[in-house]
This record gives sequence, C-alpha cells and structure tokens, in this order.
Amino acid sequence: MMNDIRVEKLLINYKTLEQFKRFKEYGNQELSMLEDLQNNIIENDSESPFYGIHIGHTLIARMSLYRVRAKYDAYFEPPQDYLELWKLEVLPDYRGRNYGKALVDFAKSFQLPIKTNPRINSHGFWEKMGFQKAKYEMERDLGENPLIWMPAGVREKDV
Amino acid sequence: MMNDIRVEKLLINYKTLEQFKRFKEYGNQELSMLEDLQNNIIENDSESPFYGIHIGHTLIARMSLYRVRAKYDAYFEPPQDYLELWKLEVLPDYRGRNYGKALVDFAKSFQLPIKTNPRINSHGFWEKMGFQKAKYEMERDLGENPLIWMPAGVREKDV
Repeated sequence: MMNDIRVEKLLINYKTLEQFKRFKEYGNQELSMLEDLQNNIIENDSESPFYGIHIGHTLIARMSLYRVRAKYDAYFEPPQDYLELWKLEVLPDYRGRNYGKALVDFAKSFQLPIKTNPRINSHGFWEKMGFQKAKYEMERDLGENPLIWMPAGVREKDV
Repeated sequence: MMNDIRVEKLLINYKTLEQFKRFKEYGNQELSMLEDLQNNIIENDSESPFYGIHIGHTLIARMSLYRVRAKYDAYFEPPQDYLELWKLEVLPDYRGRNYGKALVDFAKSFQLPIKTNPRINSHGFWEKMGFQKAKYEMERDLGENPLIWMPAGVREKDV
C-alpha cells in the first residue's frame, strides 16, 4: 500500500547507527558518525543527511541527501542548488515494493535537480525513475558514472 | 617475475576500447571515449588517463590517473598537486601476481600524494599498499570512502 510509505529524516543515535550496519554500503561516513557520537563531538539525536523508511521499528530503506550550493554546480544550466543523492538502498527482503521509488520521489519533491553516482549496477532502476546519464567529463567526473534528474526548466550543462 | 612487469600509458583506439570491455568497471568514461573517437572529436591514438599492463597483446590490468591541481586540493597539507586514481583492476585470471601492486607503485613513482575511492571492497589490498582511510568529511566526500597515500613530508589535512 503505497500511501502507507513514510520517509523520515534520520537522527544520529546508537540505534540508527546499529541499524545502518545491515546495509551493504556501510562505510567511512557511518564510522565517522559513530566516532563523533562516542566522542561527544555531536549530540545524541543530531540531524543526519540520511532519510529512511521504517516498518515498525526496523529501518528497511535509506538514502543520503546533501544540498550542493549553486557556486559548486558543474552539472546544470542555469547553475543552481542541486541535491547529491547517495547510498540509496533497500534491504533485500523488502525490494520490489516501491520503497526505492518512495525515497526518490521524496528527493524529487524538493524540485531541485538531483545528481547521483550509483555504486552498483542499477541503471534500469534509475532510468525508470527518470534519471539520465550525464555527459562524461573527466576533470569533473573522474571515476564517477553520474546520473542526473532535472525538474522542468532545467537542462544539462554543456561540457 | 616482477621485473618483467611494464606499465604503459594507453592510447585511445578501437583496440584499447574493445579490450576495456573485459573490465568490470566499464562505464560512462569508456563510452564517452568511444563516442569521441567515432565522432572524430579526438584522434585515433590520442592519450588517455589510463595506464595498463599487457601480456602479449592482451591488456590484463589497468588504472586511471589524473593530476588534480593544488588549488582544488582538499585532502593534503600543505595543499599541493595530487593524483586521483580510479578503475584499478586486474582481470580475474591474472590476480595474485602483483600486477595491482605494479600499477600502484607506478602511481607512487610520481612522488605526489594519491587519493582513490575504491568501488569494491578492497581495503585489505589498499592497506598493504600503504593507503589509509581519509577522515570522512561530508561536504567533501559525500558518497565516497576515500583512501589516501602520502609521500614523505606530506600529511593529511585537518578536517
């Protein structure tokens, strides 16, 4: 039931960080959040760049979103704030039920262009979500395979 | 026999691009090189950012290297030119024979700091190569898990 899916901003606490361990793309970012919490560099329940979907008390899907300022925009025309999206992931048992789409729709609801660099081979999914390959530009993209989505009135920057 | 391993700069031509298809991390970059060649945007045998190792006429390992200018350096102290390394990969049949190490040693021979963001779980390899995790900084690293290597006299920038 699509209308039951609720995307929430995740707070950094030991429970969230423990749940993050179930996701495949657990890395430096999560370890750094854990250290910051342990060393009191950040407070319990600080805001995080992660958004997630819970079923009961279980986090079953997540993504990270960061608003990149227009002065750093190298992808869109006219240059503007855009969202970098990463670590979009649905736990294996919950795939195929539109949770990934719900997260992407949430990101789109800001009506800003979106850029992502999926680490796994998931182009079919991103294509269904309306994302397209950015024209590759080495100095900018280096090892990335960037995918972009644009709301009306925005176009890809010429490279 | 380690002393037989020769790392070469790769030229962009149809043969190189055909050989690239055997590597797992084939993506936008390679497709863009192919298009540029087909559309005469670049000449046959243009230089590429790729370096490789051949056995006979077969490309069995490769990596990409790009020199990032000091003004964009957000990783090292003092700020300086550094190498971004990506798509380091040895074909499955040739692993465990130091070809990966030969490529990394080649990159180190420039005596510049190196940054990489391995897409696959290969931390054991990078640790053996003397790389360490960069302290994660969200605005800079977003979805990356950057690893860095520093020659003598260079240290990691405080974040």
